[in-house]
Amino acid sequence: MSVLPQSVQRLIDEFAKLPSIGPKTAERLTFHLLRSGGEDSLGQAALGLREGLRYCEACQNFSTTALCDLCSDPARDDNVWAIVGQPLDVVAIEKTSLFKGRYHVLHGVLSPVDGIGPEQIRVSELLKRLENATHRPSEIILALNPNVEGETTALYLSKKLEPFHIRLTRLAHGLPIGGDLEYADQMTLGRAIDHRREF
Amino acid sequence: MSVLPQSVQRLIDEFAKLPSIGPKTAERLTFHLLRSGGEDSLGQAALGLREGLRYCEACQNFSTTALCDLCSDPARDDNVWAIVGQPLDVVAIEKTSLFKGRYHVLHGVLSPVDGIGPEQIRVSELLKRLENATHRPSEIILALNPNVEGETTALYLSKKLEPFHIRLTRLAHGLPIGGDLEYADQMTLGRAIDHRREF
Repeated sequence: MSVLPQSVQRLIDEFAKLPSIGPKTAERLTFHLLRSGGEDSLGQAALGLREGLRYCEACQNFSTTALCDLCSDPARDDNVWAIVGQPLDVVAIEKTSLFKGRYHVLHGVLSPVDGIGPEQIRVSELLKRLENATHRPSEIILALNPNVEGETTALYLSKKLEPFHIRLTRLAHGLPIGGDLEYADQMTLGRAIDHRREF
Repeated sequence: MSVLPQSVQRLIDEFAKLPSIGPKTAERLTFHLLRSGGEDSLGQAALGLREGLRYCEACQNFSTTALCDLCSDPARDDNVWAIVGQPLDVVAIEKTSLFKGRYHVLHGVLSPVDGIGPEQIRVSELLKRLENATHRPSEIILALNPNVEGETTALYLSKKLEPFHIRLTRLAHGLPIGGDLEYADQMTLGRAIDHRREF
């Protein structure tokens, strides 16, 4: 015998499918909605998630127009492109306000274990875009995550991009701001020492 | 200029309204759905949350029928009732399989700071239910949270229930199983010493 009505259990189950939401949190979220309302606007937002959504023809990020806002912005610098793994990486970099160039979103990184090869991510779109570009960038930042998959993808891209003779860079490694030297992992601290800079 | 399409930002905002979900998690959840699908079933579940939902006429818990499954189960013991604050407390107690009696859900606890008095929670329903009961319980467990609001509510109920001359009990306090004596707060450890039992 189930203690909870089916419609309540159903939303709990849907919440629990999401990453980082366990069964307890799923219960709490559902009962929060039962108490406070708001399940309608959540439901409509979920159903409308892909409404008018497409991929930008240039950078492959999610967009509602053929070219996304960033790609159609004439104020951006065509000389520097940043290649990122996920749309959220664009959001993170935009928040810094320190990058004014163009993006390319791969929608994934190489991960043979998960069966993700170059065909599963948007590498061919990148190469085609570079080939057809009226203004090729002078620098491409391989802004991929500092982990095995990110490094593998960066290495793969560096080989694929060789024929274009474009300067390739990567994000700096080191201690996070506000971080604690004592708690930094060995590799990060090692990089921070290796890449130390003048004071 | 917004980096994210409106429909994506909308779902992020809806997720971020939920308790314990910050803006970063809201972003991750939304992009998880964009990658993996599943936003339709989440949306339908949210919209259908209150479908056929009502309050059980006896225990006031959420139900799809006039009497909920627990209240209409003839195998449950009419002699013991447990009064709980929230429907989730019923779920928690049912998981122990140690309570076979009936429930009463208050849908809240007394909290003058938040403007929640006896009229805002289902106390009158409890008193009416007791008055009209063909079989009154011999024991009522005031299974409320061990915090100020729970204690206040228990005290209030104990006075309201006095005329019925029913034995009132409360849940035991003490160290949680698997807990660490060293990390127990002063009050919990104090109760555990006060209420120590024969080995």
